[in-house]
Amino acid sequence: MRNLIADFIDHLLPRTHARPEIQHLYDLMRDYPQRGGKMLRSQLLLMVSEAFGGSVSQALPLAAALELFQNWVLIHDDIEDDSEDRRGIPALHRLHGVPLALNAGDALHIYMWQVVHQAGVQGAFEEFLDTIHRTAEGQHVDLSWVTHNTWDLKEADYLQMVHLKTAHYTVVAPFRLGMLAAGLQPDPEIEAAGLKLGAAFQIRDDVLNLIGDPADYGKEIAGDLLEGKRTLVLLHWLGLATPEQKNTFLQVMTLPREQKKTEDIQQILGWLQESGSIQYAQTIADEEARAGLALIRKVLSRAPQQQVAEQILTLLEQLATRTS
Amino acid sequence: MRNLIADFIDHLLPRTHARPEIQHLYDLMRDYPQRGGKMLRSQLLLMVSEAFGGSVSQALPLAAALELFQNWVLIHDDIEDDSEDRRGIPALHRLHGVPLALNAGDALHIYMWQVVHQAGVQGAFEEFLDTIHRTAEGQHVDLSWVTHNTWDLKEADYLQMVHLKTAHYTVVAPFRLGMLAAGLQPDPEIEAAGLKLGAAFQIRDDVLNLIGDPADYGKEIAGDLLEGKRTLVLLHWLGLATPEQKNTFLQVMTLPREQKKTEDIQQILGWLQESGSIQYAQTIADEEARAGLALIRKVLSRAPQQQVAEQILTLLEQLATRTS
Repeated sequence: MRNLIADFIDHLLPRTHARPEIQHLYDLMRDYPQRGGKMLRSQLLLMVSEAFGGSVSQALPLAAALELFQNWVLIHDDIEDDSEDRRGIPALHRLHGVPLALNAGDALHIYMWQVVHQAGVQGAFEEFLDTIHRTAEGQHVDLSWVTHNTWDLKEADYLQMVHLKTAHYTVVAPFRLGMLAAGLQPDPEIEAAGLKLGAAFQIRDDVLNLIGDPADYGKEIAGDLLEGKRTLVLLHWLGLATPEQKNTFLQVMTLPREQKKTEDIQQILGWLQESGSIQYAQTIADEEARAGLALIRKVLSRAPQQQVAEQILTLLEQLATRTS
Repeated sequence: MRNLIADFIDHLLPRTHARPEIQHLYDLMRDYPQRGGKMLRSQLLLMVSEAFGGSVSQALPLAAALELFQNWVLIHDDIEDDSEDRRGIPALHRLHGVPLALNAGDALHIYMWQVVHQAGVQGAFEEFLDTIHRTAEGQHVDLSWVTHNTWDLKEADYLQMVHLKTAHYTVVAPFRLGMLAAGLQPDPEIEAAGLKLGAAFQIRDDVLNLIGDPADYGKEIAGDLLEGKRTLVLLHWLGLATPEQKNTFLQVMTLPREQKKTEDIQQILGWLQESGSIQYAQTIADEEARAGLALIRKVLSRAPQQQVAEQILTLLEQLATRTS
């Protein structure tokens, strides 16, 4: 399935131009799609469509569009977070500078709409509009906490941000688009199920960012701390930390990434590991995953292709319990 | 007409949200549209549609979409060029930082597609795809010259960049979209006419950036020099400059904006004014404008509403000869 999607994108994007500068733009547009991401969301979309009796030819353009969405958003996210690496290679703006990378993200963005438009699947255009709007809202919430140095946040704040920023496009959108591609109205229970599953995946990702194996994880360990990202682990720990620890932490977090010292980050990592907050976050992730899987199992029980439905459940379970 | 377009956008964009961070995003999305730009392109689209017998209700969504395009592109352009001001007020990223401004541009971008999609005008979606693709190509060419410090360029290089980056969306797109809104196939002669007129407008804008009255011009004078923009004036002058002048110039241009000294910029401005290159560029702009107006006059001669056609010609002539 990954090859199908990758080939679709490869044929879609412009490849060569006589003017070397424009050729260079095309190379930048193809960079992230060629880095071989996991394509989880787009594969999920294809599987859901298949489970509900849809054809690959209907679902494939939407899967490719979702993959293009993921890629242009990542180019812009990496600028916004000033991330170092993406899929084990320096982020696009670190290779070519912010101006060219930002513009290449915009150029990629319009190919997403081209595919959605050409697919002509009833309701899919509105689904993409809604998904991107929510993602931008979640991204704004997350970034504004970083920009304005906001740490006075509750678990509910974090979950609302993650629902908007990640959960919708990671689970809700693939399920809804998959059903649309199969010519069906999306099941209303997808929303609640997807938000829980998406939150579970994100919390697990946050934990792996702290304790994962760098060789497996593909991003920098503790990158979220360097970028000042709010996570459930940190918000929980802030409720337990001593005033001195909290002071040190908040001071380090006011610094720009380059000025954060390795020993400070290591010290904070140590505190987090001793505090039990990582285990707490994992417990919440497990609960969200269990509830989400139960709901999505109900949705999938109505699918005619039960073999594919089982594969989807297995995939979602793996994601919810992944250790790398 | 400006009020019609501004009202349409005002009603389209989200206004309030219970969560203050998301309310803040909406404020950022509304910022540039509320700064009161000239709305030349979108008004041109409405006039062309009217001249060809189209109704305002068909053309207005496309005009609003073109205006939204202009606004999200300007947010991103201002980041890419690190511009100081936009319409007399600090650029969005200077007010809120690059991350939030970049994301607000993306959020605005999708509203453009929503309007184009809902308008349902045959061919308009493809026209927007094509226009944005060309604009991104032109922007990449322009930015890559700055990024890679390329000055070994000919007049033809500059014109190709301007055709892609500015001329298409400034003239070709409004004319083609206006005819589509009127239910007609766009006249094939629009392309050549629009590229000439668009080049004329851009060259004149480049000149005003050097010698305009800051009170009228609305952008910083010599901002292009600070941003290291390639212009016809500069490329022509580089062919005339003494080796010492050229050396000084190229050295100043390698510096980031903040490190460029006012006295160096003033000296270069003096050389440009003495060289005759500004007059040369104005002559080229006049020639392009004359040829473009002759071609567009032919296109407009086929319009049933000749009174509106005359207004369009007057507007284009004013733009081509504007002194502020």
